[in-house]
Amino acid sequence: MTAAMTATRPEAAVLVVAGTHGNERNAPWMLQQWQLHPAALADAGLDLQLVLGNPRAHACNRRYLERDLNRCFAPALLSDADVSGPELERARELLVLHGPEGRQPCAVALDLHSTTSAMGNSLVVYGRRPTDLALAAAIQARLGLPVYLHEADAEQSGFLVERWPCGLVIEVGPVPQGVIQAPICRQTQLALEGALGALAAARAGRLRLPEQLLVHRHLGSLDLPRASDGTPLACIHPQLQHRDWHPLRPEDPLFLDRSGSTLRLRDVLPAEPGVSVVPVFINEAAYGEKGIALSLTRRESWPVQEAWRAELERLAAPLVPAVPQSTG
Amino acid sequence: MTAAMTATRPEAAVLVVAGTHGNERNAPWMLQQWQLHPAALADAGLDLQLVLGNPRAHACNRRYLERDLNRCFAPALLSDADVSGPELERARELLVLHGPEGRQPCAVALDLHSTTSAMGNSLVVYGRRPTDLALAAAIQARLGLPVYLHEADAEQSGFLVERWPCGLVIEVGPVPQGVIQAPICRQTQLALEGALGALAAARAGRLRLPEQLLVHRHLGSLDLPRASDGTPLACIHPQLQHRDWHPLRPEDPLFLDRSGSTLRLRDVLPAEPGVSVVPVFINEAAYGEKGIALSLTRRESWPVQEAWRAELERLAAPLVPAVPQSTG
Repeated sequence: MTAAMTATRPEAAVLVVAGTHGNERNAPWMLQQWQLHPAALADAGLDLQLVLGNPRAHACNRRYLERDLNRCFAPALLSDADVSGPELERARELLVLHGPEGRQPCAVALDLHSTTSAMGNSLVVYGRRPTDLALAAAIQARLGLPVYLHEADAEQSGFLVERWPCGLVIEVGPVPQGVIQAPICRQTQLALEGALGALAAARAGRLRLPEQLLVHRHLGSLDLPRASDGTPLACIHPQLQHRDWHPLRPEDPLFLDRSGSTLRLRDVLPAEPGVSVVPVFINEAAYGEKGIALSLTRRESWPVQEAWRAELERLAAPLVPAVPQSTG
Repeated sequence: MTAAMTATRPEAAVLVVAGTHGNERNAPWMLQQWQLHPAALADAGLDLQLVLGNPRAHACNRRYLERDLNRCFAPALLSDADVSGPELERARELLVLHGPEGRQPCAVALDLHSTTSAMGNSLVVYGRRPTDLALAAAIQARLGLPVYLHEADAEQSGFLVERWPCGLVIEVGPVPQGVIQAPICRQTQLALEGALGALAAARAGRLRLPEQLLVHRHLGSLDLPRASDGTPLACIHPQLQHRDWHPLRPEDPLFLDRSGSTLRLRDVLPAEPGVSVVPVFINEAAYGEKGIALSLTRRESWPVQEAWRAELERLAAPLVPAVPQSTG
């Protein structure tokens, strides 16, 4: 049984992607450092594929050229021969090169992002795959990072990490687009080391998980109030700005309109007595065009299931050790 | 004499430009408000021309399409028939429409910008024109805003306001590109009201100036240390980030290199004993491509000259009163 499973799962590396969005500059800057000095990520002892996600957009310092690369990984889109463009071609290329069945196969994808929202150092998980939940729980146990569980959102799909058997986004902010800040870089490195450490433990069959995983489950997104021509009629209320992860009550301010009037949560959403929502990605620069001023989540504590650990350990078992680097 | 001077100076308006850079979103959002509700800027009682600087770049949420509009106003460039492109055409158009000799002539240009640097609410003046110094001094007396005097910088020229007889930039930050934040909007409005109030006083011959103008005189700019291929080898030191306007001593940290070593001011610039420099525009997102990680200034207190007041009052005398708006 074990032999048969190993045969169907060849040796694999961990894919680390930076710069999936070309104007997020911190992780790509770290990536250059890691490429020059692999010892900086060597503690976990795993073979890594370090990849710049969207090199052409990075060269232009723009999020993307024609289409958001991190919405290109929907199977229907990838397989549609009638749809092309630089980002879709890059998505297909990344799968050919580093996909689970690619030339240098990767079993896990870690996608490093930054945001103008005050998300701090955080994780985004797409759906409820046991491997992802195990990895998120292990990182949360090590570093205490909050987890945004994105699911059931027909408007936003096709995320890169979904095409690998395990993967999540490390999301750090606030930092402006186009700007490198040392603390953002440090947090990115810290979260990545936490993820790699968890994967190394899983590979060794020694993954330790907490009893509970605290998730912020996606409920929906809110757009700014807009005129019929799309012009925003309000902005994020200053009392909400930078309050990502802080529970919102029905009477809390949400938007400030042009006349100076406050729109409150209860004005926008019917209140459920005793139930609070938790906002994330408040005023992310790139989400304006997607009609998202913020997303709302529900904070839930989930019992960690034994099956999650087993699935991640099974997936991580064939991960290749890093080739030892000469130092000095 | 007065009649002759009036004859050479026809009635003129005040030009208010927002969105000279298409990814600076706060002032353009206020501009829409002012266009819909002119009463919001009516206190000064001046006729205003409210203009979106670079509408095509604004529509794309990019700083510019081909060329920085706020470097297109050099006379040699404007008059060079061999040079074109969307920004240069827009610069010429703005002068035809609203230049001092334009169809709707403006005597003063107020150009509203935002920055990812922690400049707070601040003024940028280009060179030492008496009218600009008078206007800056009057706003500083009203609101205490710091003034960055940009001059003698061959690398950076062709600023919009230089083509009007009087003009300055209102620069507010920090705010990410592409993001609207209510406090940035409020500061923009406050500084603009201060400028218009000063111009109204000058028009009425009642301009009151302080005894001293505190300026931060441009000395030069520093780029990040870079590899031969242009790759940055260091980032802004976290102890310097957001410290715009705070004097730097020779031993203060400037950059943090990839190995974690600190580069200090004295490592980059020879120290002049007892003389401090004051940094501005630290880590402005758009200046990376210009090779500017920060600019250094010297803080100086200049006696305000009577001639400044006289020149601004003479320039402001033909400013047209606002057409009264019906309210309600």
